[in-house]
Amino acid sequence: MKAKIYISYKEGILDPQGKTVGSALDSMGIDGIEDVRIGKYIELSLKKTSKQEAKAITEESCRKLLANPNTETFKFEIEED
Amino acid sequence: MKAKIYISYKEGILDPQGKTVGSALDSMGIDGIEDVRIGKYIELSLKKTSKQEAKAITEESCRKLLANPNTETFKFEIEED
Repeated sequence: MKAKIYISYKEGILDPQGKTVGSALDSMGIDGIEDVRIGKYIELSLKKTSKQEAKAITEESCRKLLANPNTETFKFEIEED
Repeated sequence: MKAKIYISYKEGILDPQGKTVGSALDSMGIDGIEDVRIGKYIELSLKKTSKQEAKAITEESCRKLLANPNTETFKFEIEED
């Protein structure tokens, strides 16, 4: 069983890395991009367990370690093998 | 229009950050996690354009800057507003 977690900055939080990458793409001649936001994509491989338990483990991991509650939001999905 | 890009290490490439986070979760008493892989989640806000053009811009951005072709793979999806 796998958990796929997407962590991104909250609206309104400045993302300097995203801004830098946006400028770089622009200076490379890639047009059409208004804004770039960079977050984290985390995959957890979980031991065999129920989907409900997998959700609980993932939620706890995000709340206690993976995401910064002050500046970031997270969402995740559980994928069965 | 938005492009959501997921970049992760290729199979077989060591992910020391993921290993460290895995150990941390373990030592916090969160059980049931076998492996952690950490990648990037990038959102591009695109100017109004066709879906086909949006795909081309995103693919080019990934190939030329966002992903390291030696160690990483990427996938993406285009979301219309």
